[in-house]
Amino acid sequence: MKKEHIDQINRAVEEVKKRDIKSIYFVACGGSQAVLMPGKYMMDRNTDLISQVYTANEFVYDAPKSLGKNSIVISISHSGTTPETVNATKLGKEKGAITISFSHADESPLWQATEFPIHYDWGTDADASDLNKPVVYGLVFKLLEHFTGDKKWAVCFDELNKLQDLTVKVKKDHAESAEKWGQSYKRSANIYTIGSGINYGEVYSTAMCWFMEMQWINSAAINSGEYFHGPFEVTDYDVPFILVKSIGNTRHLDERVEKFAKQHTKCLEVLDQADLPLDDVKPEAKEFIAAILSGVVIRQMVEAIAYERGHSLDVRRYMWHLDY
Amino acid sequence: MKKEHIDQINRAVEEVKKRDIKSIYFVACGGSQAVLMPGKYMMDRNTDLISQVYTANEFVYDAPKSLGKNSIVISISHSGTTPETVNATKLGKEKGAITISFSHADESPLWQATEFPIHYDWGTDADASDLNKPVVYGLVFKLLEHFTGDKKWAVCFDELNKLQDLTVKVKKDHAESAEKWGQSYKRSANIYTIGSGINYGEVYSTAMCWFMEMQWINSAAINSGEYFHGPFEVTDYDVPFILVKSIGNTRHLDERVEKFAKQHTKCLEVLDQADLPLDDVKPEAKEFIAAILSGVVIRQMVEAIAYERGHSLDVRRYMWHLDY
Repeated sequence: MKKEHIDQINRAVEEVKKRDIKSIYFVACGGSQAVLMPGKYMMDRNTDLISQVYTANEFVYDAPKSLGKNSIVISISHSGTTPETVNATKLGKEKGAITISFSHADESPLWQATEFPIHYDWGTDADASDLNKPVVYGLVFKLLEHFTGDKKWAVCFDELNKLQDLTVKVKKDHAESAEKWGQSYKRSANIYTIGSGINYGEVYSTAMCWFMEMQWINSAAINSGEYFHGPFEVTDYDVPFILVKSIGNTRHLDERVEKFAKQHTKCLEVLDQADLPLDDVKPEAKEFIAAILSGVVIRQMVEAIAYERGHSLDVRRYMWHLDY
Repeated sequence: MKKEHIDQINRAVEEVKKRDIKSIYFVACGGSQAVLMPGKYMMDRNTDLISQVYTANEFVYDAPKSLGKNSIVISISHSGTTPETVNATKLGKEKGAITISFSHADESPLWQATEFPIHYDWGTDADASDLNKPVVYGLVFKLLEHFTGDKKWAVCFDELNKLQDLTVKVKKDHAESAEKWGQSYKRSANIYTIGSGINYGEVYSTAMCWFMEMQWINSAAINSGEYFHGPFEVTDYDVPFILVKSIGNTRHLDERVEKFAKQHTKCLEVLDQADLPLDDVKPEAKEFIAAILSGVVIRQMVEAIAYERGHSLDVRRYMWHLDY
């Protein structure tokens, strides 16, 4: 990770250390909200803080009672212009919270609204450790090191630097299977995504952004723990599902889904994190690196299906074209 | 509400008053989880407690760090037999939390596992204030009265007794429109549901249970605040949506969805809570009574579409028939 990004993270964490923090609010919209979901997950499982994810406008119009000077508001917007996210960040600052915001665009409205802006890189030339997810994980790891005193989070932070080599390897490993998947499902009008624990954000953005927004394919994100309590009844031989099978604590939930679904649909694609090339990643970081790499694999699958369908991932019919 | 139910709620609240509560975990599966979501919502907006909703098995396999003797675990299972929910309740008790559990079935495994069981009624003969949602709201109101000291929650509790008459009226008011809606959309392979704030649970269970589980119709629940950040790109003239338009703080979010969606689909059904017969409900309770009554209207719509499709709401292909 670039020194610029680490310095920006450290500046924010230094301010956090001066305060008696009781709540952390992760606030953004759509795919950006999804990028923050692992942060909420890690805070819940490792600290006694209030930790919540909000879609930005719900935060603005219906803020939680605890929002105040003992809070951190963490927001993210790629362009830095998402009005709801900018407003949520402004509200956080007005209420006295520490505001920390991620964006690819320096000097954007979000950059102006926040106290601690953190830049991330984008595009194929960027080092994989400087993209949005690792930079967000980086902040969360540093916060966890502070809140828990556990040095494992510093190890996790350093392991993020392995992402560039791992990303190249994972892309190579999955190129053929992603292409095949795209060819197989290019006619599907509906594709479900399933995952649990730290991976829920990834399956959420896959459903809401990759499929619904960028491919106009009907979708829904299903928590593995919820599958058997409603959603599984739509399973049929021709209904496609993508399941992210965790290597974390919730693996059992994903395994139950896999065991059942593979008997009742021919269209189950399992992305098993145990198959990712994590041998050289330190044990305490494997779960987190796996979560980020799962997104790399899914992106390959989505690029493949977009190509097969002749429907560019850059096409929108409403977004950017209309006022709403 | 029956004295039996009130007494059971009060017994649980008396125990809560003896403890220094710092976190409340709402834990269940599927439609039952959805019934608890308004509880989490109200706690977030009105207290400084940690308040989280978990699908039960994620709670069991990956419990939050704060779970302990300063916690309340609130669970619900209609049959009282849902293994994940029973196990989550047992885990709560093992960790020293106060366990409060709702079920229609006395002496069920959940009843045995919990410290404070609360019964609710079911079926067409039951008074509407004794069904699952009002009894859950009743507990939440009593907890809020304790945690906030605000007497408005006692008013809200008493207003639940108006639900029987209101339910009869709402069913009558919506009988024709529900029938028409069922006729219009009986051929739809996909119906989305949208809502915000306290109503998200209702649109979640409509998607996951009413449509996916009980009608095998593809669906997804979309938070109104998220619609413009991905999902809205699937909107087209023939894509059906049900929007619950709140009378609470998030109404603006729902209005934005309505304004946009009605220009781009012919298939938007808006359930505007401002049209519900709430004149005789005290102001502080209107939002909550509206949330419960919205479920009554949706149920009518679902019953209508089930009738038109000849697909009984009691049919399952996997649930109850297979081990999983």
